Amino acid sequence: MVYATADGRTETRLRLGMVGGGRGAFIGAVHRMALRLDDKAVLVAGAFSSDAERGRLSAEDLGIAAERSYPDFETMAQAESAREDGIEAVIIVTPNHLHAPAAKAFLQHGIDVICDKPLSATLEEAEELAQLAEKSGLVFAVTLNNTGYAMVREARAMVQGGALGAIRIVRTEYIQDWLTQAIDAEGQKQAEWRTNPARAGRSACLADIGVHAYSLAQFVTGMLPEAVAADLTTFVPGRRLDDNAHVLMRYAGGARGVLIASQVSPGNYNRLSLKVYGDKGGLEWHGHEPELLRFARFGEPTRILTRGGAALGPDAQSASRMPAEHPEGYIEGFANLYVDAVSLIAARRRGAPKASFTVPTVQDGLAGMRFIEAAVDSHEAGGTWKTIS
Amino acid sequence: MVYATADGRTETRLRLGMVGGGRGAFIGAVHRMALRLDDKAVLVAGAFSSDAERGRLSAEDLGIAAERSYPDFETMAQAESAREDGIEAVIIVTPNHLHAPAAKAFLQHGIDVICDKPLSATLEEAEELAQLAEKSGLVFAVTLNNTGYAMVREARAMVQGGALGAIRIVRTEYIQDWLTQAIDAEGQKQAEWRTNPARAGRSACLADIGVHAYSLAQFVTGMLPEAVAADLTTFVPGRRLDDNAHVLMRYAGGARGVLIASQVSPGNYNRLSLKVYGDKGGLEWHGHEPELLRFARFGEPTRILTRGGAALGPDAQSASRMPAEHPEGYIEGFANLYVDAVSLIAARRRGAPKASFTVPTVQDGLAGMRFIEAAVDSHEAGGTWKTIS
Amino acid sequence: MVYATADGRTETRLRLGMVGGGRGAFIGAVHRMALRLDDKAVLVAGAFSSDAERGRLSAEDLGIAAERSYPDFETMAQAESAREDGIEAVIIVTPNHLHAPAAKAFLQHGIDVICDKPLSATLEEAEELAQLAEKSGLVFAVTLNNTGYAMVREARAMVQGGALGAIRIVRTEYIQDWLTQAIDAEGQKQAEWRTNPARAGRSACLADIGVHAYSLAQFVTGMLPEAVAADLTTFVPGRRLDDNAHVLMRYAGGARGVLIASQVSPGNYNRLSLKVYGDKGGLEWHGHEPELLRFARFGEPTRILTRGGAALGPDAQSASRMPAEHPEGYIEGFANLYVDAVSLIAARRRGAPKASFTVPTVQDGLAGMRFIEAAVDSHEAGGTWKTIS
Amino acid sequence: MVYATADGRTETRLRLGMVGGGRGAFIGAVHRMALRLDDKAVLVAGAFSSDAERGRLSAEDLGIAAERSYPDFETMAQAESAREDGIEAVIIVTPNHLHAPAAKAFLQHGIDVICDKPLSATLEEAEELAQLAEKSGLVFAVTLNNTGYAMVREARAMVQGGALGAIRIVRTEYIQDWLTQAIDAEGQKQAEWRTNPARAGRSACLADIGVHAYSLAQFVTGMLPEAVAADLTTFVPGRRLDDNAHVLMRYAGGARGVLIASQVSPGNYNRLSLKVYGDKGGLEWHGHEPELLRFARFGEPTRILTRGGAALGPDAQSASRMPAEHPEGYIEGFANLYVDAVSLIAARRRGAPKASFTVPTVQDGLAGMRFIEAAVDSHEAGGTWKTIS
Repeated sequence: MVYATADGRTETRLRLGMVGGGRGAFIGAVHRMALRLDDKAVLVAGAFSSDAERGRLSAEDLGIAAERSYPDFETMAQAESAREDGIEAVIIVTPNHLHAPAAKAFLQHGIDVICDKPLSATLEEAEELAQLAEKSGLVFAVTLNNTGYAMVREARAMVQGGALGAIRIVRTEYIQDWLTQAIDAEGQKQAEWRTNPARAGRSACLADIGVHAYSLAQFVTGMLPEAVAADLTTFVPGRRLDDNAHVLMRYAGGARGVLIASQVSPGNYNRLSLKVYGDKGGLEWHGHEPELLRFARFGEPTRILTRGGAALGPDAQSASRMPAEHPEGYIEGFANLYVDAVSLIAARRRGAPKASFTVPTVQDGLAGMRFIEAAVDSHEAGGTWKTIS
Repeated sequence: MVYATADGRTETRLRLGMVGGGRGAFIGAVHRMALRLDDKAVLVAGAFSSDAERGRLSAEDLGIAAERSYPDFETMAQAESAREDGIEAVIIVTPNHLHAPAAKAFLQHGIDVICDKPLSATLEEAEELAQLAEKSGLVFAVTLNNTGYAMVREARAMVQGGALGAIRIVRTEYIQDWLTQAIDAEGQKQAEWRTNPARAGRSACLADIGVHAYSLAQFVTGMLPEAVAADLTTFVPGRRLDDNAHVLMRYAGGARGVLIASQVSPGNYNRLSLKVYGDKGGLEWHGHEPELLRFARFGEPTRILTRGGAALGPDAQSASRMPAEHPEGYIEGFANLYVDAVSLIAARRRGAPKASFTVPTVQDGLAGMRFIEAAVDSHEAGGTWKTIS
Repeated sequence: MVYATADGRTETRLRLGMVGGGRGAFIGAVHRMALRLDDKAVLVAGAFSSDAERGRLSAEDLGIAAERSYPDFETMAQAESAREDGIEAVIIVTPNHLHAPAAKAFLQHGIDVICDKPLSATLEEAEELAQLAEKSGLVFAVTLNNTGYAMVREARAMVQGGALGAIRIVRTEYIQDWLTQAIDAEGQKQAEWRTNPARAGRSACLADIGVHAYSLAQFVTGMLPEAVAADLTTFVPGRRLDDNAHVLMRYAGGARGVLIASQVSPGNYNRLSLKVYGDKGGLEWHGHEPELLRFARFGEPTRILTRGGAALGPDAQSASRMPAEHPEGYIEGFANLYVDAVSLIAARRRGAPKASFTVPTVQDGLAGMRFIEAAVDSHEAGGTWKTIS
Repeated sequence: MVYATADGRTETRLRLGMVGGGRGAFIGAVHRMALRLDDKAVLVAGAFSSDAERGRLSAEDLGIAAERSYPDFETMAQAESAREDGIEAVIIVTPNHLHAPAAKAFLQHGIDVICDKPLSATLEEAEELAQLAEKSGLVFAVTLNNTGYAMVREARAMVQGGALGAIRIVRTEYIQDWLTQAIDAEGQKQAEWRTNPARAGRSACLADIGVHAYSLAQFVTGMLPEAVAADLTTFVPGRRLDDNAHVLMRYAGGARGVLIASQVSPGNYNRLSLKVYGDKGGLEWHGHEPELLRFARFGEPTRILTRGGAALGPDAQSASRMPAEHPEGYIEGFANLYVDAVSLIAARRRGAPKASFTVPTVQDGLAGMRFIEAAVDSHEAGGTWKTIS
């Protein structure tokens, strides 16, 4: 972790490797921007693509030494764990079906894992992975990135602090329009793998974005539903998985929820929202204006809470870089996860007691997989209520 | 319809009577403002309250002649139908359980009916009323008032004109917070009757506001769902009917919908919204900013259409009094229904051919009742899907 | 004021006449809707047009008895003041240059006046009119209609109550786009008279809409500037008066202001706003969403105050008909002025002590004229500062 | 520029140094995050503080080799220009009064300059610096960061492409509230130097934020005013420079403008806006929601253009990293300037022909200084119009 660079600087940044995220990929580049923003980690190795040439070129683009550009994650896990200056953690940003195998490989070599969502393509893999991770004692962070927004953390702190009273209602929605037409059938890479059962799992829309809405609701309320009834639809002819999902949720204690996910809602590029209501107040947050949190105590005017602004708690403050109304956005939120994940990993490696950072874990990833499983089961049973395992 | 007033003016306004709407009532006053706004009808008789003294005082407030203030709707229907200058139509604004008996009385005396929603307290009454109304040949308008907004009419015209392509998704929401606490148990009059099974019917929240969302969606899309799955909840201890409703909807042809209604969502005084998505475009309308309609063709920027503004069709234009951004609101939308209902009634009385005005009819009211019935049935069966009759 | 109508009702409404407002006019119809909304006054006479035939037809449209449709305001003032059931007040809604002569005629016959803005076409007339009105003891209301909005009244109450501390800054803007092209040269009636020096006075844009922004700021803050520096522009070739105005303002005590008025700002149908900042807080109000008032105490989150909602004072409450988020708009705001003006006039006629209603008076109209005069003087002197008389 | 790091990667990033920006500073950290985001440059040297110990610690924080942490910019310019691996460009983020001396030192040693705004504390320095920079042939970028936003670049392209027609009106506003109270007198570091004539120059509010609004308007419209009339105010007792500015602007060709800057407007953390109107259309952009651009052709509905969304030109596209509605913000906009500045510098060093990147230059910085000078002159002359030199 500490070394001198050629230009004489002292590096104290965590050494990271990446699986997936080569040329043409989307989320890998986001992870790299996020980790650079706060300069607490550096990417030094990778297996960027199953296509060897693309992998090599991607490594070159990123200034990764040729010898540390690997053809596959198995080789990488083995080689890096053998190096004295090997990676201290791995980032997994492949299509869904490779999350579990890749993560397993690194866990088995004692390397901490930062994995994109959903945790895996099947619930079985997810269960196995969760057991393995727990047993290993390693850090396993899942980049459910919306949990990194300052105002989402404020929302969570408010719920925990009782500002809303007992939670009664949770409504969350994640809607897009990019799959309104059959671009998956026309070979658009991002669309293709997400709607391909072999690579995405049992669901496309729920696995790609529904799980974000689910985890956001979980993160803010601290609650997971007991049962769901789901109505999944494939509107675009020829598509093999769902592109729209309407889900009802029931929580222990009587709270109720609705989760909507759609990739065929024209006019919405990427609209994520969460509304939570309790017996004392309600709050509302929208992913396309992440700096704002609307909050009303019952019987009082709505307050607009703003990142960097007045009346915020320590969680929101520590997740904020800029003064209020100098907008922070998606990458900054993502970067907050990296700040916390890197701290967790560094602490673990130092043998420091486990800090309670706000990074979603393998258990949260598993919860998302259980939700997808129950929702698809419900749907296949005609929309009846299914208990979440 | 044409007569001279004491101050020498010539009146050509339709003569109306009202049942319900006395002192302390809410919606009766709204109807009166709405009908005065455009001065096409005048209130000349009423049975304003089941409490005789309150009825008398209410009539006095409104400048109604004492002899035309009636103790009950039966007496009123009989007396007014016998007068040469008797009312030409009646407005019914009682609690739900009296809608059907009152409407029946006036229909039987040949008097056109303008009735508030929901159509009745039970589906049986609604079915009977619809049959009676159809047989009578009289006008039966149901004041599902959101259909009166200019931009809602624009939305309907856009859907009809194909701007959205084939409709895939309908999402509608009507949320309030005024029943967050147990004010019904504390004797608040408006809350008490709406949550009282004897006066409201099988549902409170769905019957009071859910039906507005349902009818709005129907009006704009021209579509009614075939089946629903409903999760109704009573969050406030001691309340006898639902105060929150989450409903999934399936339409013939494969479209899907979600309807949310809640009276326990703090921070929302009265938020009604409709979002409709087709394979070519989407639109969004919100009742608290009724002058705006958001519309996007897939692949193009969102346009903000504004009442009184550019690029609107004749339906929106004819439902508009003021130039753009001189806000019109709830009463103006309500008044549009009166303009059209009065025109319909006047035309019928003249024997003119039936014009196609945009006023919801007894059939629309009946559709709302069938929805409530199916939703409550679904709920009572544990949230299974129920076909709408 | 109290009489029986042919249909047996007892009328207790104030009897009003109207000068101007015939077919093709805009604001006259608004006044009529506003006064009908709350049913506290009735229009029984008029001189609706300088064109005799148009006047006659307009009266017929409105159900005014032919004998009370007058060819001009002089005849009307004389005839109505002679009738036992003559009008109790007159509404003046002519082009600007006739406001003063018409008002004078009615004042001289002892009839209370409700006059549209601006008070007159010249400052001299305005000064004379103000003196005459004061001497007469009659009510002289000027329909600076934005002062009728509930949330504008709330804003005023908040400033008066010290919620903002000492006022430092006043910024107000009224922008439209309907004169972006030369429609006045093409004979559009509304555009023609407003840009015609003989009918509008020394200014078009300031007199038509700038004065609304000015009076709004005055109403809310209770402050009038001492001096202005104005930059007026006529952007459309051939136009004879200003279509855009940028004005700086200095108040006694050191406060500063900016007033912007424009009729050539494409994309803005009718956008009026007011922002006021003191040493303890700030507020913001927008005419196209009149139900909302944004308020922030320095160092606290912004609160969204809503008509009909929580935490409002009696002024806003008494100017509200509907529950929160059942939108009220322009006509409802206008109607609030009528409610108060009618009350004032009725009280004066009963000899009741002068109530302090919130209706702008001839003095407020005069203040607007002094502002226009100073702004045009400043502009003609090259944009130098001019003291307001 | 190309070297191997200790961990075996090949660096091809530009080597940068920084003057100012040590512990406790604000904007230096922003520059560092911005340059890291896209990984095209690396900070290797600095003179971070006039306080030696603070400078040393700041360098340590940043992983800068001790030998390349300099006590002052003169020493740094000399030493770095003598090294083979010396910095290729310098970033200047000191208080205003040191911008010019520092920039001069590096220019004289042949080092390209990236300088924060305003260009200097006095117009004389700015003029001299501009001459020196022009003569040197070096790159001199001024980080007027709002010009880096994708949608600001789209706005500029739209104006250039004629979408608005001939520009008539420019209105811009930058308002904050953090100086509402006398925190400068209480020793708040950021407030102290900005309101200190010795360090900030002749203006505080205009120099700190007004110049941003001015440059934004210039960037989008391509126009600079010929004359201004300014009303500057110091509202907080004891403050030595302006905290509020109202400025009228006149452009060659007849266009007109208003510029408002304020640091004493409670409820506004940091609100920057630009509105531009031409004879064919208008547009509106707000810094706190930088992803949106409102555009209306006269007579058509307003369109909401979105970064990453439909119908955008190449300038906006190339300034965008993330898909639409994955919000980018302040740092991303800032980073766009770095991407372009680094490209310019790299091209110059390679001897490539001068590319036309969209980075504000020393001439733009000079324009801002001339504006401040004219505005302060106007104000001191009582608010009369002053020609901009």
